[in-house]
Amino acid sequence: MKIEFHFDFGSPNAYLSHLVIPEIESRTGSRFDYVPVLLGGVFKLTNNASPAETLAGIKNKTEYQEIETQRFLEKNKIRSFKRNPFFPVNTLKIMRGAVSLLGTDQFSYYVDEIFKHMWADPKKMDEDEVLMKALQSSQLPGREILESITRPDVKNHLIELTSQSVERGTFGSPTFFVDNEIFFGKDRLQDLEHTIKTRRREV
Amino acid sequence: MKIEFHFDFGSPNAYLSHLVIPEIESRTGSRFDYVPVLLGGVFKLTNNASPAETLAGIKNKTEYQEIETQRFLEKNKIRSFKRNPFFPVNTLKIMRGAVSLLGTDQFSYYVDEIFKHMWADPKKMDEDEVLMKALQSSQLPGREILESITRPDVKNHLIELTSQSVERGTFGSPTFFVDNEIFFGKDRLQDLEHTIKTRRREV
Repeated sequence: MKIEFHFDFGSPNAYLSHLVIPEIESRTGSRFDYVPVLLGGVFKLTNNASPAETLAGIKNKTEYQEIETQRFLEKNKIRSFKRNPFFPVNTLKIMRGAVSLLGTDQFSYYVDEIFKHMWADPKKMDEDEVLMKALQSSQLPGREILESITRPDVKNHLIELTSQSVERGTFGSPTFFVDNEIFFGKDRLQDLEHTIKTRRREV
Repeated sequence: MKIEFHFDFGSPNAYLSHLVIPEIESRTGSRFDYVPVLLGGVFKLTNNASPAETLAGIKNKTEYQEIETQRFLEKNKIRSFKRNPFFPVNTLKIMRGAVSLLGTDQFSYYVDEIFKHMWADPKKMDEDEVLMKALQSSQLPGREILESITRPDVKNHLIELTSQSVERGTFGSPTFFVDNEIFFGKDRLQDLEHTIKTRRREV
């Protein structure tokens, strides 16, 4: 059974899911594969738009999303979440950074740190100086990472991962797959966990 | 504790919720108050639109909603659901009919029957002849109901219920309230049940 988390650092709901995933992993004895997928690319390929755009001007709907976010925070006892005041932050560079580290020991640490720089102690992570400082403060090799994100193979890999994800049904972030079964949004984590447990029993 | 189900017959997700509500009532020992709320009115007041409109042209998103509907049907062992081929059906008349029966013994039966005429054995319920036949086949007083829906007090009452609902946070159908706590969509029924149980214990 392959469990995948397709994420973009720019999505607060991806961050909130990221905080809960370790608990699901420990309850189910499974591992989530983290797959960087550029949300801006997903939106272009699917003709979708961010909630910030689609909810704009609709009375009550944004307020309701906020209620649901608060419920999620309470339910999962999350205290380390702050709205990023620079939202929307262009995530192309930090997403390429993730791709450049795929398969290395540093990948998970990088993902965790960048999520924090976006949503726990939020910064304008699309500015080179801010990004460099943030990487250094996390003891990550800033210069190396900033260089790697200009490499054509890294750029292409992110494009590939994004279009492959869309081919499998992705239209937003976060998206999860249990083998080829798709789940969208942090609100599906309960169903996702149930599916993992059910499949484990069936094996 | 007051539990309310704000519904419009035109919403398939309201119908699917309606099928599951009796189980929640029996598990929690509670009663849901059914409140007719005109979805078209809600959309006008909130500047929202139906999923059929907002999802149009977005790749993967409609397909995903269909996956979630199938999951809900399976999970709740629902067999009596058919897409209404005349969708969207203008629900103004059947919603006024519900309002005209509010507080009478026939209300619950009417609601149950009209939901079936919309989503179990679907018909074009905005046509007078079709509506009359459907009411008669359900042994409901067709002529009386069709007359009552032209009454100003009935029309105004539906407008009132709709605007009161929007004032409390409604932007779509189905919407639920536990006292003044709002829940939107059939996918919140689990959280809703949890909230009811928690409050019961606290009392």
